[in-house]
Amino acid sequence: MLGLMMNTPLLVSSILRHAENYNGDSEIVSRTVEGGTHRYSYADMAARAKKVANALAKFGLSPGDRVGTLAWNGYRHLELYYGISGAGYVCHTINPRLFHDQIEFIISHAGDQILFSDLSFLPILESLAPVLKGLKAVVILTDRAHMPVSEVLDLLCYEELIADESDSYDWPEFDENTACALCYTSGTSGAPKGVLYSHRSVVLHAMASSSADIMSISSSETVCPVVPMFHVNAWGMPYSVPMIGAKLVLPGAKLDGASLFSLFEEEGVTITAGVPTVWMGLLDWMDAHGRHFTTLKRAVIGGSAPAPALITRFRDKGVNVRHAWGMTETSPIGLASSLKPKHAVLDDEARLMLEAKQGRPVFGMEFRIEGTDGNPVPRDGKSYGAMLVRGPWVAAGYFNTPESPAHSGGWFDTGDVVTMDADGFVQIVDRNKDVVKSGGEWISSIELENIAQSHSAVKEAAVVARADARWGERPVLVVVLRDGARFTRDDMVDLFTDRISKWSIPEDLVVVDELPHTATGKLLKMKIREIVAARFAAMEPDDSILS
Amino acid sequence: MLGLMMNTPLLVSSILRHAENYNGDSEIVSRTVEGGTHRYSYADMAARAKKVANALAKFGLSPGDRVGTLAWNGYRHLELYYGISGAGYVCHTINPRLFHDQIEFIISHAGDQILFSDLSFLPILESLAPVLKGLKAVVILTDRAHMPVSEVLDLLCYEELIADESDSYDWPEFDENTACALCYTSGTSGAPKGVLYSHRSVVLHAMASSSADIMSISSSETVCPVVPMFHVNAWGMPYSVPMIGAKLVLPGAKLDGASLFSLFEEEGVTITAGVPTVWMGLLDWMDAHGRHFTTLKRAVIGGSAPAPALITRFRDKGVNVRHAWGMTETSPIGLASSLKPKHAVLDDEARLMLEAKQGRPVFGMEFRIEGTDGNPVPRDGKSYGAMLVRGPWVAAGYFNTPESPAHSGGWFDTGDVVTMDADGFVQIVDRNKDVVKSGGEWISSIELENIAQSHSAVKEAAVVARADARWGERPVLVVVLRDGARFTRDDMVDLFTDRISKWSIPEDLVVVDELPHTATGKLLKMKIREIVAARFAAMEPDDSILS
Repeated sequence: MLGLMMNTPLLVSSILRHAENYNGDSEIVSRTVEGGTHRYSYADMAARAKKVANALAKFGLSPGDRVGTLAWNGYRHLELYYGISGAGYVCHTINPRLFHDQIEFIISHAGDQILFSDLSFLPILESLAPVLKGLKAVVILTDRAHMPVSEVLDLLCYEELIADESDSYDWPEFDENTACALCYTSGTSGAPKGVLYSHRSVVLHAMASSSADIMSISSSETVCPVVPMFHVNAWGMPYSVPMIGAKLVLPGAKLDGASLFSLFEEEGVTITAGVPTVWMGLLDWMDAHGRHFTTLKRAVIGGSAPAPALITRFRDKGVNVRHAWGMTETSPIGLASSLKPKHAVLDDEARLMLEAKQGRPVFGMEFRIEGTDGNPVPRDGKSYGAMLVRGPWVAAGYFNTPESPAHSGGWFDTGDVVTMDADGFVQIVDRNKDVVKSGGEWISSIELENIAQSHSAVKEAAVVARADARWGERPVLVVVLRDGARFTRDDMVDLFTDRISKWSIPEDLVVVDELPHTATGKLLKMKIREIVAARFAAMEPDDSILS
Repeated sequence: MLGLMMNTPLLVSSILRHAENYNGDSEIVSRTVEGGTHRYSYADMAARAKKVANALAKFGLSPGDRVGTLAWNGYRHLELYYGISGAGYVCHTINPRLFHDQIEFIISHAGDQILFSDLSFLPILESLAPVLKGLKAVVILTDRAHMPVSEVLDLLCYEELIADESDSYDWPEFDENTACALCYTSGTSGAPKGVLYSHRSVVLHAMASSSADIMSISSSETVCPVVPMFHVNAWGMPYSVPMIGAKLVLPGAKLDGASLFSLFEEEGVTITAGVPTVWMGLLDWMDAHGRHFTTLKRAVIGGSAPAPALITRFRDKGVNVRHAWGMTETSPIGLASSLKPKHAVLDDEARLMLEAKQGRPVFGMEFRIEGTDGNPVPRDGKSYGAMLVRGPWVAAGYFNTPESPAHSGGWFDTGDVVTMDADGFVQIVDRNKDVVKSGGEWISSIELENIAQSHSAVKEAAVVARADARWGERPVLVVVLRDGARFTRDDMVDLFTDRISKWSIPEDLVVVDELPHTATGKLLKMKIREIVAARFAAMEPDDSILS
């Protein structure tokens, strides 16, 4: 027997309508690509999103058609989010930091009909001219005064495109499972894979991720998503912040310390979110200039794990760090490291260790930590297993891709090897493929990297496996040192001794000038393994840790 | 084109599973009907809910069958919520404060197969014996030692029923639109009508109502729903609090000031929710005994509007009041009076006026304030209109009732006449049927009642219409005075003069010993109109306000 409740669908347009009707005067502030700061209200944004929908209608698109964006966090990008998805098309955010070939692949694979791009990406657009000429339009997100001239592409001007459109538009009502947005993963290997979000998944994720234990967004906050809108929909904030009606601050292209600091202070930002790299830049700049936050109180950190040292640096500046975990396939938020009341008695060190974990499950997401025998591993915070997830905002497959080995039996295999404790705190031990398998034991490269990172001489650290005749694999530490700093193999052994089991201490140290990263800033472990293999191809170490 | 996300259903069992897995050690504390305090954990609760599901399976119920409860807020009632709904049956909470005939009607109309009842309600059960004998079982929520003896009914003992059942049970997965819970409205007129909630509506309502601007429930709170679990599912808290994993405190049968105060203090309650009557009792007791709250920080008030004086009394005790509005048909929460940042500059009086309003729309609920011409009225905070609502947790009709005039065109007519301002703050001007229509103008009985209530002599006030040859209707104030207090018609005119337009000042004053209420504590306006009509049947007032 079914309940007797209204079957009102969960749609992205309902977020916009709510923001427009009840928080119409809340502000959206954007640092623009053209320079300067733009400010308007949710009511203004909603009116322009309707102009976008009216403009799109003239291109002869069909429901479900993909419309690409190549843009920073800014108000025009936000208008596209709502204008495209609200009208029933799919907003396909493209990561401009990907390599040329990947972008080309993604646009073709997605079948984008129109592409909207920030001014900044003209060189990318021109290099993609052969592909883009097949599209219905390429639109530059600027006004006539700033329109670039291109020899190779016909470009439309966004402001001209929408200028004469009506700001009245009835958002269509359709099945909440309708496709809403598309984002390609930029994995460390293989072709990018598209995750096709539904209106339902986006709305549910926004509700869950804004809740008190996760991002804690209320209408009295000022929220600045530093994580880009092309990076898993800026972790849902372009949806969750308007849903709540909080002031939204969009940082544009400049994510350096000086730019972010001045933006936070000028606009009174209270909550921000982004990846560790950005925060290191910000905190370094602040330390160098002796500056302090006056309004910021919470930084949500994800993308990769914050080193405990980063959490401490934020805390020393009065900012609480909430580590959140997610993937493109999980919309993204699945875990957040909010403490429970019983943890109030923990000392600083223990508290920090917990906060640095990936966190506890967000309501709505189910987790299964599966051992090699296919059964759940003990919830003791020590036993390792593969992390499988399911839930209404988890991908069931990839766009236009017949098979996905990661999706089976109703679960998605995240590819992470983790521990989970009795409270549900998950710690990623490693990527399944990055774990160092030594003498029958699993050694987490990440655990070793965090320890290395805590040393004052170390700027960045990576641990990878190197083949070993006796043990199968042995860990090797690869570091970039701070300017003028010194760090030897003996220093390394001293650092690790008594902090981890002896067999987990890295076998060797390699100092490099820089570490290779993926387009999204993650360590490129495959490449680092190659560097290490090459370095040790011709020699054997003098003395083994385990000898 | 549909998105490619998992179609994991939103089910009540997913709330329980989350609580059990990740907040298994969070506490549930109950004052029991038998006397004393019971405490256990979410893990314990989940284990016993599974025993309930296993026990229910033996009665030969079919999916969708209704199982009734007649119980206070306590742990066994909570186990039934999850055990019944989780297994695919419908948890039908019955309000024991209703009149005998209403309860009899409700049990029959719902087609309850089994009834679970607290000890306290044995007299009700025995009076219902002819109806209850048709049920598969009547189970008393107690242990063998406390089992009552009944001459007229065969009663089962809850603890015996579940004692030998397994605490292992696989919650079935089904369509999220499946019926989950049933609650009858106890309107002021007509037969009670059943609202049949779905798993989807319950889960979405719990997510929305726990958010930062509504109840703001985080896992570090201790939440005490004083509003009964038979009163629109205690406003969703038996679902939202376990969803978040906060400590849950259930007050049992004793809702007097002394009992609530000691419970709040002993258990460290930080958030509570209930109707104004209960709070007046609590604050009066505290004032009489010179006591102060040490942990409580927020009181959600609903059911009927809190007088501004009540909000002030709470604030003076360090407690922030959040007025929330809802109905059985809206699950219930649709509005909450959380202020926006711009309201920080308001003076106390203006702030209070805003907080006393029914509040702003919760995301997910859509509102239409419709004038007599069928068009939306201006959002100026002054223009009146009928309040229509829609959304995923709004009833689409009533159980086992073919037609509902209140449901049409995709909207539910709340029966309230309201204003809405530009921020979405709704103020109920009156029930559509209680508005005083005088000389072509609408006069809000509630606005007049609030003013009367602010006078020190007035204990309780009601305003109703009385027929008037010249003006159609004129308002009459009916008051209960505080012990020994004096309040004349001249006092009344003085009180209202300059606070409202002259034509809105009540025409006459009637002092009574007590006012009639519905079973759920609402003023019985129909009855009050009869009292007033009888009083004035034989006489005309000396001087009219409008003469």
